[in-house]
Amino acid sequence: MPLKLYTNYIEDFITENEILELQPEVNKAHEKLHNGTGEGSDYLGWIDLPEAYDKDEFEHIKVVAKKIREKAEILVVIGIGGSYLGARAAIEFVKSQNYNLLCKDTPKIIFSGNSISSTALSEVVDMVEGKDFAVNVISKSGTTTEPAISFRVFREMLISKYGKDGAAERIFVTTDKEKGTLKKLADSEGYETFVVPDNVGGRYSVLTAVGLLPIAVAGIDIDKLMQGARDARNAFKNSDIKSNDCYKYAAIRNVLARKGKTVEMMVSYEPSFAMMNEWFKQLYGESEGKNGKGIFPASAIFSTDLHSLGQYIQDGQRILFETVVIFKKPNKEHMIKMDPDDVDGLNFLAGKEMSYVNRKAFEGTALAHNDGGVPNIVLEAECMNEYELGYMIYFFEKACGISGYILGVNPFDQPGVESYKRNMFALLGKPGYENEREVLERRIRK
Amino acid sequence: MPLKLYTNYIEDFITENEILELQPEVNKAHEKLHNGTGEGSDYLGWIDLPEAYDKDEFEHIKVVAKKIREKAEILVVIGIGGSYLGARAAIEFVKSQNYNLLCKDTPKIIFSGNSISSTALSEVVDMVEGKDFAVNVISKSGTTTEPAISFRVFREMLISKYGKDGAAERIFVTTDKEKGTLKKLADSEGYETFVVPDNVGGRYSVLTAVGLLPIAVAGIDIDKLMQGARDARNAFKNSDIKSNDCYKYAAIRNVLARKGKTVEMMVSYEPSFAMMNEWFKQLYGESEGKNGKGIFPASAIFSTDLHSLGQYIQDGQRILFETVVIFKKPNKEHMIKMDPDDVDGLNFLAGKEMSYVNRKAFEGTALAHNDGGVPNIVLEAECMNEYELGYMIYFFEKACGISGYILGVNPFDQPGVESYKRNMFALLGKPGYENEREVLERRIRK
Repeated sequence: MPLKLYTNYIEDFITENEILELQPEVNKAHEKLHNGTGEGSDYLGWIDLPEAYDKDEFEHIKVVAKKIREKAEILVVIGIGGSYLGARAAIEFVKSQNYNLLCKDTPKIIFSGNSISSTALSEVVDMVEGKDFAVNVISKSGTTTEPAISFRVFREMLISKYGKDGAAERIFVTTDKEKGTLKKLADSEGYETFVVPDNVGGRYSVLTAVGLLPIAVAGIDIDKLMQGARDARNAFKNSDIKSNDCYKYAAIRNVLARKGKTVEMMVSYEPSFAMMNEWFKQLYGESEGKNGKGIFPASAIFSTDLHSLGQYIQDGQRILFETVVIFKKPNKEHMIKMDPDDVDGLNFLAGKEMSYVNRKAFEGTALAHNDGGVPNIVLEAECMNEYELGYMIYFFEKACGISGYILGVNPFDQPGVESYKRNMFALLGKPGYENEREVLERRIRK
Repeated sequence: MPLKLYTNYIEDFITENEILELQPEVNKAHEKLHNGTGEGSDYLGWIDLPEAYDKDEFEHIKVVAKKIREKAEILVVIGIGGSYLGARAAIEFVKSQNYNLLCKDTPKIIFSGNSISSTALSEVVDMVEGKDFAVNVISKSGTTTEPAISFRVFREMLISKYGKDGAAERIFVTTDKEKGTLKKLADSEGYETFVVPDNVGGRYSVLTAVGLLPIAVAGIDIDKLMQGARDARNAFKNSDIKSNDCYKYAAIRNVLARKGKTVEMMVSYEPSFAMMNEWFKQLYGESEGKNGKGIFPASAIFSTDLHSLGQYIQDGQRILFETVVIFKKPNKEHMIKMDPDDVDGLNFLAGKEMSYVNRKAFEGTALAHNDGGVPNIVLEAECMNEYELGYMIYFFEKACGISGYILGVNPFDQPGVESYKRNMFALLGKPGYENEREVLERRIRK
């Protein structure tokens, strides 16, 4: 039984009726998504992707992933934003947030080109030094600053280590299917290429080659991943809130937002969910945060952060609601043993499974936070495997599209992301930005 | 030149006068801190700690850290909240967020007992399997659930691997100086103990043995760390906002909060600052988030998150301000090279240092976010070393005390943290919670 929505910890705050009253708005959003009549309709490729994906490329991804697993100790994945978060989140979700530290028969996967920190870049250089490594560079245009700087470094390292031909066997390019400088380079140098589809935006691209190649290299079964997404696509096709948990989640978020809950905290009781939180924050923040609107996306890992943010959640400004993702079964169980001395007074837990304690921590916390005025939307999944992940990814993607249209924004653009880039390019003296530069230089008050 | 405050990116939003108008409130807060006349005055030990710390224990910490470095491949640090975040944040700040992945002559440091995830616990068990490891368990009472469960496991592993005496040489206990079950156990088993002072709360404890032992094991110079804190203590002694950046920061936060900025986003352009963000979020969230008050603490790493949360920050709900911590010098520099083909069009950056590009990214972003209605408080430090860290820790701690008193709360308690624990214990059937249990069981709507 995959992801299911529970509303029992929001009942003190909103009624079933208040949710159902959004049915007309949900219907409109549904039509916009399925008829492509809403803003951003050029980027709806993710809706049918679980069925309509390129089967040949998909098989090719598996072949190349196997090749990389056999030949490389480390895969350096170069990308930022949607070309970074999805793959990392999926690998940590299925394998562990300590993936690179664990003993395994798959390569270490190190993400680079997602900041402008020379320290961070130099560290990755040190980590691959003397190791057999391959590179997967992911960039639609090939000109995004962060990954471009990083790719210059690792491409040169590969060429000087393995020669031009050897490097060509170790560089894998995920980019536009025909346009762009990276595509041109790949073709001229004979690098294998994979496609960033035109009709799928970065934050919706984890189930394309963008996410699938690194995910497959980590030894994750991408067939099961797509199966989960496919089943979710079928499960969330109809627009009836009553029977569609995905749409119901979208409706609930908007009802809570209209009641003054301006911050949504994505919560999990599994540390390996931490990067899924980050993926969620991009998906929702970038889709809804525009025109002065949007729920602010925050996140926490419990019980860890109950000992840091817990006080605020319980008793701070009442602007929060939580969306809690819990799992019926942990990947690894642990039975709490009897301690003859009972030093810590925990013998009342002896013989109990730790996952049971974690479950009770969730129930106790949900009730405590309810008492503190914080609604908890609960999403329960079976376990943390490929199938559940694919299902969950599609659930959040579609709920985001619906939610954004209900909010009254274009969920598929990100005009605000350009602002810092334009300023940065101007300040860096990029040709063509001369006029902006003068103005900005004057505004920088040292 | 250590941490310095710049107000040039808040000038569009508040005037110098609006800040100075808080001088009387700052004076009151200052008196409460220095005369111990405010709420929570039993927990002001951190104020003079950089001078008044226990010199003998400090030297002992260095000796023991050296012993652990020589004898252990891995140190498992068991603690949660303030007994976890400070040490981890400091190690990642000075050494790297990839500390455990880097080649080094110091032990891996793995943090456990900070969640109730059986998967996370089992993973650490796998990681120490067959390795020489030591344990530093950090708990004032010794009965906190998360670390207690973890300590049961690793203590048993050590005993079965090295015998009772061998284990006693590898278990290091940081706890109450005389009370508590953990202290009793340590004394009876002959474990070395370090003190969690009575007058320093968890979130203020990083410069006590709580943080210092793991930090020293990582090869970080704790003398320089304390020197930084000592210099900050002297720099931020007087209550004049004009000359006291620490108090000015506290005042500015409150002015912005009163103007409707309900979320503070702590930002850095260095990925290794990520755990400092988490430390900050506990310090401020737990200190200020009470009585329905408090700025909600969020965080981001740029430019990484400019490609995820960037859109929201630029153009979402105007409830945000940013506090940006930047560094003049990176730990490792990288010069961008010329690329004959200039595939990515970045040759206009050739010959430039990457840290220069990162700096321009900050300036361009601050201006863009200002244009989007987001004030940026800027804190600039020299570099990411021990001294700057100690200085910064004290800066944020004292600013938090001042800010909390200005806000009108007790910055040194955390009553809300108990709520989930009480519910959890009741639901788990802990003796003494029988009545609560019935009530809660009925409220859990399955």
